[in-house]
Amino acid sequence: MATTNRVCKLVKRPPPGLVQRDVWAIEDLPLREPGPGEFRVKIGYVSIDPAMRGWINDSKSYVPPVGLGEVMRSYSVGTIDASNHPDYKVGDAVQGLFGVQQNAISNGQNVGRVDLSKAPMQRWVGGLGMPGWTAYFGLLEVGQPKSGETVVVSAASGAVGSIVGQIAKLKGCRVVGIAGGAEKCRFLTNELGFDAAVDYKAGNLGADLKAACPKGIDVYFENVGGEILDAVLLQMNTFGRIPVCGLISAYNATRMPEGPKNLRCVLTQRLTMRGIIVFDWANRIPEAIRDLATWHAEGKLKIREDVRKGGIDAYPETLNLLFSGENNGKLVLAV
Amino acid sequence: MATTNRVCKLVKRPPPGLVQRDVWAIEDLPLREPGPGEFRVKIGYVSIDPAMRGWINDSKSYVPPVGLGEVMRSYSVGTIDASNHPDYKVGDAVQGLFGVQQNAISNGQNVGRVDLSKAPMQRWVGGLGMPGWTAYFGLLEVGQPKSGETVVVSAASGAVGSIVGQIAKLKGCRVVGIAGGAEKCRFLTNELGFDAAVDYKAGNLGADLKAACPKGIDVYFENVGGEILDAVLLQMNTFGRIPVCGLISAYNATRMPEGPKNLRCVLTQRLTMRGIIVFDWANRIPEAIRDLATWHAEGKLKIREDVRKGGIDAYPETLNLLFSGENNGKLVLAV
Repeated sequence: MATTNRVCKLVKRPPPGLVQRDVWAIEDLPLREPGPGEFRVKIGYVSIDPAMRGWINDSKSYVPPVGLGEVMRSYSVGTIDASNHPDYKVGDAVQGLFGVQQNAISNGQNVGRVDLSKAPMQRWVGGLGMPGWTAYFGLLEVGQPKSGETVVVSAASGAVGSIVGQIAKLKGCRVVGIAGGAEKCRFLTNELGFDAAVDYKAGNLGADLKAACPKGIDVYFENVGGEILDAVLLQMNTFGRIPVCGLISAYNATRMPEGPKNLRCVLTQRLTMRGIIVFDWANRIPEAIRDLATWHAEGKLKIREDVRKGGIDAYPETLNLLFSGENNGKLVLAV
Repeated sequence: MATTNRVCKLVKRPPPGLVQRDVWAIEDLPLREPGPGEFRVKIGYVSIDPAMRGWINDSKSYVPPVGLGEVMRSYSVGTIDASNHPDYKVGDAVQGLFGVQQNAISNGQNVGRVDLSKAPMQRWVGGLGMPGWTAYFGLLEVGQPKSGETVVVSAASGAVGSIVGQIAKLKGCRVVGIAGGAEKCRFLTNELGFDAAVDYKAGNLGADLKAACPKGIDVYFENVGGEILDAVLLQMNTFGRIPVCGLISAYNATRMPEGPKNLRCVLTQRLTMRGIIVFDWANRIPEAIRDLATWHAEGKLKIREDVRKGGIDAYPETLNLLFSGENNGKLVLAV
């Protein structure tokens, strides 16, 4: 029986750019027992998300930054191995903001139950977890796609993008994914059923996008920013919607990237751009899980994780994989 | 009795930059009589609007560009001097898209009636005309200001901005205007009742804005774009709204200006940016006129025109005054 809890702490603010190893400290802390009204989770998988890059900056954002000396924040999923909580018993599977560590203590607040009969554990921090909820509310509530409209999503083979595209197909839209490289593009059309895919690395983004979207673009689900946003703006239809979920092209920039030159299209086409953070729909997450799990069980929603091994020690290098585009599907760290 | 109609035609597409004289031709055409179901308007004032710069470019926009050889498009106001239309009689005052010319023929479509007992003629292409309607729907429908919130407007001493700020005051908001120069700023606070004004030419925009908006910014009514948008984005509150009415800083740019570097604030603060074009509220314009005219009559809404003389011949140079910021209040050309 283990008596220690291995954790990854943030010990330094990272300068702009890829996160260097020295901002992290891997430590073994004494394993705590749950107090009254608490339970302990033995964590199986840690979700690796682009948002993490923002959480460690000391700047105004939608949540306070992770403090220096604190265990790194993360969505994680695991099984309860000790409990003094009336509603949670040993053996229950749960997910929540449990952090990058082997064991977490919780009082049950903002914890979600996980049904392992419906999907394996890692999927509950992937397509059935935060990335799935983000895709669900961002597309349906902000994007408001209507049958017959054209929906474009960037980072389309990623955790959020792959689900956005599949939900848009379920809603009767023409769906075009933007991704980097021929292999990812083939995955979108052959495996996920996208109508077309555009390889932004092929050097012909504007023309390729135009060919893929002959009726223009009604909804653009934004994960990337930068030049891709600029190219899409020029082809948006009147009254188009742009849910802004991420701007990953800028997260590790060492100098502030240029903004979109084609912002005038927001005016001339009367577009709506709106930032989305899934926390704003916290009280409706069961609705997202219900629909996503149903579609998944019916074979209408494919979800793919890229599970990396190495435990807590491997967190620092696993995080940086996100920004080099090396992952295939939702990046998850097995603990 | 005149037998000719002096017009300003567009004869050349302008390259980027201020509009040169050679894109225009001033001509005397034969004066037409109205046909069946038509009337003729003797134009008193032509509205000079930033949107005109976009209308003469050959690019995708919310209306087709003015064709080469066509009379320049404009909102104008005048008096009917000949009529074969059952609903419009000689002497009626009307406004509409009558163009930059001395006389216009109309069938009554999209024409608005003007009540000269409520305000002088020039005001009906100013605060009670298109700029007023734009301020009204842009602020109230897209900006959704609530009492106690902070509203910032750029180009605040201009035709639209000055009305936006005054309506926001009527709705119980703290109102801060951004304008160029101490004189315009004094006008905003001393004459129009703004709570504060920020001079963007003073070189301290971020800090001055912060001092003027101690509780952050809830609504930013955008007329300018560029660096001003960037500075405002950093101080927007969660769930803030940004009606995008104009991006005048870019209209005459000879190279594509940089976009906002701080677009990440749209994501982290969950902002909504939405382009507005007053044509989209065409069927609700009487509602805007009713409220604006009432506020104006009650002395709660000050409206100021900058009337320029010189007739149709002066149109080319009068248009460029907009972009040098030399006008004080709504720019109008007396015909």
